[in-house]
Amino acid sequence: MKAVGFKKHLMLEEEESLFNFEQAIPEATGHDLLIKIEAIAVNPIDVSVRLNGTETYETPKVLGWDACGIVVAAGSEVSLFEEDDLVFYAGAFDRPGSNAEYQLVDERLVGHAPHGIDIAEIAAMPLTSLTAWESLFEKMRLELEEPSLNQDKTILIINGAGGVGSIATQLAHLAGLHVIATASRPETIAWTKGHGADQTINHRRSMPKQLHELGYENVDYILGLNDIDGHWKEIAEMIKPNGRIVSITRNEQPLDLGLLKSKSAEFMWEWMYTKSYYQLPEMITQHEILEKIAALLEQGRIKSTANQIIDGINAETLKAAHALIETNSSIGKIVLCK
Amino acid sequence: MKAVGFKKHLMLEEEESLFNFEQAIPEATGHDLLIKIEAIAVNPIDVSVRLNGTETYETPKVLGWDACGIVVAAGSEVSLFEEDDLVFYAGAFDRPGSNAEYQLVDERLVGHAPHGIDIAEIAAMPLTSLTAWESLFEKMRLELEEPSLNQDKTILIINGAGGVGSIATQLAHLAGLHVIATASRPETIAWTKGHGADQTINHRRSMPKQLHELGYENVDYILGLNDIDGHWKEIAEMIKPNGRIVSITRNEQPLDLGLLKSKSAEFMWEWMYTKSYYQLPEMITQHEILEKIAALLEQGRIKSTANQIIDGINAETLKAAHALIETNSSIGKIVLCK
Repeated sequence: MKAVGFKKHLMLEEEESLFNFEQAIPEATGHDLLIKIEAIAVNPIDVSVRLNGTETYETPKVLGWDACGIVVAAGSEVSLFEEDDLVFYAGAFDRPGSNAEYQLVDERLVGHAPHGIDIAEIAAMPLTSLTAWESLFEKMRLELEEPSLNQDKTILIINGAGGVGSIATQLAHLAGLHVIATASRPETIAWTKGHGADQTINHRRSMPKQLHELGYENVDYILGLNDIDGHWKEIAEMIKPNGRIVSITRNEQPLDLGLLKSKSAEFMWEWMYTKSYYQLPEMITQHEILEKIAALLEQGRIKSTANQIIDGINAETLKAAHALIETNSSIGKIVLCK
Repeated sequence: MKAVGFKKHLMLEEEESLFNFEQAIPEATGHDLLIKIEAIAVNPIDVSVRLNGTETYETPKVLGWDACGIVVAAGSEVSLFEEDDLVFYAGAFDRPGSNAEYQLVDERLVGHAPHGIDIAEIAAMPLTSLTAWESLFEKMRLELEEPSLNQDKTILIINGAGGVGSIATQLAHLAGLHVIATASRPETIAWTKGHGADQTINHRRSMPKQLHELGYENVDYILGLNDIDGHWKEIAEMIKPNGRIVSITRNEQPLDLGLLKSKSAEFMWEWMYTKSYYQLPEMITQHEILEKIAALLEQGRIKSTANQIIDGINAETLKAAHALIETNSSIGKIVLCK
């Protein structure tokens, strides 16, 4: 089968930073499904893994954590899917990714694709939906289907127009929260409001000051989706006592946790891969979340965050997608279709 | 009325580090109760506030956040208590404390004292019970009365024999958890096991190694009650993926939060004063918690953690109590009775 990978961590300008190669189609055993890939999406994590590291891989490393495809074979323990099912999934951090013709994925990380939605639109969803869902409904313990519980609650989503921000804004809005999202350009402000943000502020200026101008002293929840180091002091200032902070981006510098002490505020990391990386019994919840996301898409209660669709899955198109992510200003998701 | 206070932050050897003085009995208004103090307990926070600071106070500052006493007057909005009620409470961080003959306290922070228990035993309980309760049942979201939910769960309590550790061990045991508490001396090990710890390890040696020797790879919950800086790396190593960490002691150095990232672990501060300091609507929960603690004491399901009882509430006896706390090796609680 065809695949795209790399052996060394290189800048995009280097020919070998991502290259096409051939390898054998893997075999499905146990809980694994063998998927024929139809569309994939690219996330900041792809760029981060491609760039960071000093290893040289003998077999090229295949990235990719977002796919829509067809089940073509199943291991003996598979019970949730059948051949020919159209599915979508993000997969595991430590296994070969979706930048290939075929891929193995544990069925407990997979959902049935929603009906009546474009394959490209579906491929945009899994990684960001899982991240946003786990952040809001597991870590922050919000209730999706009880909007009355959340109607007096405010969430600040830092980086509302990115991949995770675009779906987190929709889910928080659906859950009945007052959503303040950060966005700084006319097109990101429009995109974010289109997802249900009630108000926007600019995270490149003082966020507490802008919150005050909107009439808020502080907020109940903060979802940090970029530069936790740079925003930390303001996050600590803006969070309500006993409030909850979730961050998906790793800190580069030590964070002064003491700033949260008198408020007894809670800080939670969200890393979508934790359940599969540690093979936790809760792995099955990723199947359940994706089934719910599919239903919300079918019902039109949320919409896909796909924003750019590129034809072809190969080293050239993947490099183009990585280049877009590296600008740090892409809106929504970038999808590649076969 | 008589009170004990200080004007400057001084070492205990200094005469004026704590001194007796006279002041007017305050008047109860609003939600305040005026309490005639019968017994008080001393906590590490008393020593910390006495030692740290550079201010000079014109009116002496009165410490003390644990009391058992009698309601002698009530503000016009009081609805939970009547005159002559025997009550117990920790109170607020930013108001004059219990090292006095009389004290004002907001009724929402107060519980009815349990019947049939010694006043000294009661005075030992409020601050540590509130801290342990909020840590286990609010921050970690454990269920007290559903032990079957917790029977496969393990909690590590670092500093099991201290004030908070002594009650947290009892409550975690009552909730059905497997409790591993740290204790290093024969007398603290015995004290801790007497409160329901299933096993003890020594936090002055490698905790992960000792956990492994007990057959545990990691634990579901960690309650950090001393030296969060010194224990941070081991805490990050010992916590389960998606596990919950609560700390009550402030860090002195930045903590490397990134160590928790791949595990998506949660970190929560617990500061018992947060609800009253920020005048949160949840203040009333401290009344409710103390009522539940009183019932557990009356039913004999938990026991008081009072360990040393000193006669008389004055500068001399308070200095003796502070000196004991400053050894950093006191077991359970130190109580002063009128």
